[in-house]
Amino acid sequence: MTDAQDALAWAYLSAVAEPPSTPVARLIDAVGVREAARAVSTRRIPDGHHAVLRATAARYEYDGAQDDLETAARLGGRLITPEDEEWPGWALHALTLSDTASRGGPPMALWVRGQGRLDAIVDRAAAIVGSRASSQYGEHVTSRLASGLAAAGRGVVSGGAYGIDGSAHRAALASDGATAAVLACGIDIDYPSGHGRLFDEIVRTGVVVSEYPPGTSAARHRFLTRNRLVAALSKAVVVVEAGRRSGSLSTAAWAVKAGVPVGAVPGPVTSATSLGCHRMIRDGQAQLVIDADDVERLISPDGTDTAAGAITRRPDEKVLDDIQARVRDAIPGRGSATIAEIAFAAGIEVARTRPALAMLETYGLVTSDGSGWRLPAR
Amino acid sequence: MTDAQDALAWAYLSAVAEPPSTPVARLIDAVGVREAARAVSTRRIPDGHHAVLRATAARYEYDGAQDDLETAARLGGRLITPEDEEWPGWALHALTLSDTASRGGPPMALWVRGQGRLDAIVDRAAAIVGSRASSQYGEHVTSRLASGLAAAGRGVVSGGAYGIDGSAHRAALASDGATAAVLACGIDIDYPSGHGRLFDEIVRTGVVVSEYPPGTSAARHRFLTRNRLVAALSKAVVVVEAGRRSGSLSTAAWAVKAGVPVGAVPGPVTSATSLGCHRMIRDGQAQLVIDADDVERLISPDGTDTAAGAITRRPDEKVLDDIQARVRDAIPGRGSATIAEIAFAAGIEVARTRPALAMLETYGLVTSDGSGWRLPAR
Repeated sequence: MTDAQDALAWAYLSAVAEPPSTPVARLIDAVGVREAARAVSTRRIPDGHHAVLRATAARYEYDGAQDDLETAARLGGRLITPEDEEWPGWALHALTLSDTASRGGPPMALWVRGQGRLDAIVDRAAAIVGSRASSQYGEHVTSRLASGLAAAGRGVVSGGAYGIDGSAHRAALASDGATAAVLACGIDIDYPSGHGRLFDEIVRTGVVVSEYPPGTSAARHRFLTRNRLVAALSKAVVVVEAGRRSGSLSTAAWAVKAGVPVGAVPGPVTSATSLGCHRMIRDGQAQLVIDADDVERLISPDGTDTAAGAITRRPDEKVLDDIQARVRDAIPGRGSATIAEIAFAAGIEVARTRPALAMLETYGLVTSDGSGWRLPAR
Repeated sequence: MTDAQDALAWAYLSAVAEPPSTPVARLIDAVGVREAARAVSTRRIPDGHHAVLRATAARYEYDGAQDDLETAARLGGRLITPEDEEWPGWALHALTLSDTASRGGPPMALWVRGQGRLDAIVDRAAAIVGSRASSQYGEHVTSRLASGLAAAGRGVVSGGAYGIDGSAHRAALASDGATAAVLACGIDIDYPSGHGRLFDEIVRTGVVVSEYPPGTSAARHRFLTRNRLVAALSKAVVVVEAGRRSGSLSTAAWAVKAGVPVGAVPGPVTSATSLGCHRMIRDGQAQLVIDADDVERLISPDGTDTAAGAITRRPDEKVLDDIQARVRDAIPGRGSATIAEIAFAAGIEVARTRPALAMLETYGLVTSDGSGWRLPAR
């Protein structure tokens, strides 16, 4: 965990701009989190970062950061940042690839409550989402899918809402699976209120996650923003039931942007709550999914990326983006280096170096040995 | 209609080999129908056609041709051949393109019963097929689809069986639509027996069709063979419900071979009768179809091939096969020519010239003026 000063700075910055805030994220990258917090609070913004002024104009006087950290701690929660081991950098990396102009950037930090480890859960998770106004059929199919995924060792990510989301979390818990609920409000708020007990169940083994600080209330635009996290934190997104305008269609759309495969469960063509699923399948936006085996195929068409396995594909050099290439080149030819050393050598912030290393590791281009990173043995 | 001698020869040849018989078809092409009939009955087969001996070994002594024609006539039926105007040459042409080695050739002739005109019905028809063990859901969706297609001016082709087929025929009739039942037995046989009244309804405005002569009983291999006709006689094949091994899956497979688009209706993933549909959609063998509008899109993705319209696309020259190119070249530069004249000039049998002309007309490369064929005005 970062030290207390850093934690306070992260908590402050997570509150002063509506996330995700690209200007604030850029500022942290440029000057570090403490200096960024000081710049925002004093309004002395470095040249080239003046967009930060506008993004934080309404909230820069926020003084609840310490309270937020205490609230989280009281709930058994924590604030995790790109500097933490638990940060799911690889998963969130997908959001740096997508269209940040439309609220698509990665979260600055995540408020997490629960005994589960976020990075471990999402590393092998599938999202199951759908209509709040679900049918008995939809809830039955959701339970079957979530149980199947849990039995296969997959975590189940969803949005904690009534209907399909709730069925997915419950079935995962009932099958001793790990589950993560990604909220559109603070982790101290039970929204929907009827799911307070469910969230208490989830945090015993899983996690409740939010990029909003404690006390933040749910709001329409936050549901849409939250949906991108559900998509990014999953290896596949499965929509079980969705009406014509279900919010789960936005989760599916985010998944497409982030390169996460999308599945949809069919149902009776006479059912309005299956219409969104049928349209996505018909129009090629989603693969038809019957059961958990189909979700496995969606995640890994060739069967290599099972929950027990790992991606072993080595990409062509040209697949690496600039930052990844610089990070790879900064790793010494002999011995290992810490993230801080690699970040320094590459001239890239630690916050960006970590996801790059995670991706390079996935590609088999670097390995970690607990104390540091090294090139793989030939 | 062909004259009485020809009709007798066609009726005889339709009975002496299990259709479709490529050797017999080739013999007719080579020497004409009367000479072919005489050759088969006398066992004096021309050189290069000895496969005919084997194909007709069991039945060459057949003497029921006259009775068959009378049976058909008594039922208000007829035998139509490639020489008849009613012959759906363009539709059946697709079967000449597919793998004839596995029983995929066009029928030699068709026994037809009913007031409808086969070529007119199939020119704008969609097939609706599915499980005999259909669910209420499947029957409901079938009725909705068939009514919608009938309302859009489309004929409905199916196999006359219990379950989905029967629902499709009935809904088409109830919506004053034209419908064609393609049987795996003679047109004088009510199979299934409970559908005798349905067939009587169908023939008032539509047709009951079979490539088997009157008296032929239904048999397992004939259902599979019949399925290729259902596919070829339709602009699209829609499977409403199909279990894991439903015969309608074979109809869909024939459609794929013949280049006919295939749709499948989803249903509850908990329903065994939807499993075949879901698998076809999932595996890319069928498009998901919700309603009649989706079937229209399947038939005409760009909206040009409505039931009221016509294909106007002009293909590249290289799309024409040898026979089509020879037929096109045989049409005089000025004035028109009869089919017999064109067939003579091209050195191709009339039976093959007609479908080639039909395709050329579809491509806009020839036009007919009632008395003959000519090149289109420039």
